[in-house]
Amino acid sequence: MRINSLTSVFILTTGLFLSLASPAVSSVNIYPAVKSNGVQDTIPNTLFTVGIGGGLIGGLYDGFYPYKLLKKHGDFGLGAPDKLDGEIMVFQGKVYKTQHTGKTIPVDDQDLTSFSMVNFFHADRTLTPPKGLNKTALFHYLDSVLTNVNGMYAIHVKGKFKMVKTRAFPPVKAHQHTPLAEMLNLQQFFNHQDCQGDLIGYRLPYFMDNTNISGYHFHYLSDQKDAGGHIIDLLTDDIVIEINTLDSYTILPPATKDFEHFDFKKNREEDIKSVERGGKN
Amino acid sequence: MRINSLTSVFILTTGLFLSLASPAVSSVNIYPAVKSNGVQDTIPNTLFTVGIGGGLIGGLYDGFYPYKLLKKHGDFGLGAPDKLDGEIMVFQGKVYKTQHTGKTIPVDDQDLTSFSMVNFFHADRTLTPPKGLNKTALFHYLDSVLTNVNGMYAIHVKGKFKMVKTRAFPPVKAHQHTPLAEMLNLQQFFNHQDCQGDLIGYRLPYFMDNTNISGYHFHYLSDQKDAGGHIIDLLTDDIVIEINTLDSYTILPPATKDFEHFDFKKNREEDIKSVERGGKN
Repeated sequence: MRINSLTSVFILTTGLFLSLASPAVSSVNIYPAVKSNGVQDTIPNTLFTVGIGGGLIGGLYDGFYPYKLLKKHGDFGLGAPDKLDGEIMVFQGKVYKTQHTGKTIPVDDQDLTSFSMVNFFHADRTLTPPKGLNKTALFHYLDSVLTNVNGMYAIHVKGKFKMVKTRAFPPVKAHQHTPLAEMLNLQQFFNHQDCQGDLIGYRLPYFMDNTNISGYHFHYLSDQKDAGGHIIDLLTDDIVIEINTLDSYTILPPATKDFEHFDFKKNREEDIKSVERGGKN
Repeated sequence: MRINSLTSVFILTTGLFLSLASPAVSSVNIYPAVKSNGVQDTIPNTLFTVGIGGGLIGGLYDGFYPYKLLKKHGDFGLGAPDKLDGEIMVFQGKVYKTQHTGKTIPVDDQDLTSFSMVNFFHADRTLTPPKGLNKTALFHYLDSVLTNVNGMYAIHVKGKFKMVKTRAFPPVKAHQHTPLAEMLNLQQFFNHQDCQGDLIGYRLPYFMDNTNISGYHFHYLSDQKDAGGHIIDLLTDDIVIEINTLDSYTILPPATKDFEHFDFKKNREEDIKSVERGGKN
């Protein structure tokens, strides 16, 4: 009973702190950090991104940023490896790659990513949704909770799944820049039944499109760290969802010659959507 | 002679350093910070932005971020005041506002901005263009030097001008959200002849549109800090241009209720261009 009371006080206090600290639940007009401290402005909940989403979709597959540096900007996230050799998961400070063979391995600190986003994950809300949600139902459930349509959210889903379907791309050749939407037939799919693991992902607002991918975007990593990839479909069993509301984002564009000549005026909105979904519709 | 030799060595050394440090002139594929130091990744040349450009253009005029905090992220930049009451210039660590009356005043640390971008200005190149350039000719000259079309550049122009034409908007009422492109007739214009001062501005790449304004964007501040505003036209006399190549950018979206419900799916590209130019064409 004593423990329960203390826990309640802790939860209430934490809730109060969060309602002051998070723009998503704040009704004040002034940047929240000012309220608690007239000068502090550390912007703790920031999404750090290397690469430009529209560039990756359009064929900028050359890695330019080492995971060693990426990990300094976050312990949670997802991305694409150098030469598109699979899919990247950053979880609890470690970086894993699922290749097109399905093989899932830790990546070397010196290896390079062409596009990744990470944040230091601190849950500000924990949710326990009903069982048996498919991908669409899970996203609807999350939409009902994440009411700021222009908010940025890191989302960690932990637990048991009746089914998780993932995909990974095979590597491209050096200097190959075929747009990703033209290589969807090369994707390899993996169906995991009755599995246990983590979904690592984000819901990002529409204004971040082109530099990133708006809407939901998840990668999967099994508990045993022996399976993963970009989420195509799923059916939940017992899961717990943690939300980290983000306040800001930083983008570090590629430092490559190919990037300097890349045409960003081309509209790649449909390509971005079809690549995220894993197919044209 | 001795001084000249030393100066040459300094210039050569600085040039070498810059060619290693700046992605814009680097031909390597790895993020430059890695080359000099395996772990350092301070990303020194970052553009810090509060607010979303498309939001300001669409009517999000309520300030939410104090200049006191803004100055912690840069000593050079431009922006819009709370309620659109003029135009903001950040120069040598101080913040000035030119109102629609033409009055130019320092702003209070506690005042709020609805949209601003700043960086700590460190010139990596200094240029001395020919005299007598109008705005179009100046931008063509800069284009011939800033060859990375997807690069981000802070640009400081210092010197004498035969003419500088600026504009400033009058303040809106509380909670007024009329789109900026529908209020172009309220702009006040100021023609300054044979004046001396600074242009504070940026050239940003196309992929930053919607969150910011791509292309050139300059504000003016007179030497006496008694005149300024958003640049509409100009004719140069004796000027020197300093370039600061930027590596990354951070965006802090507004923490306001109005922002949470703002429709970013509407295409405001033409509105953004007409507001930057000061007219429909």
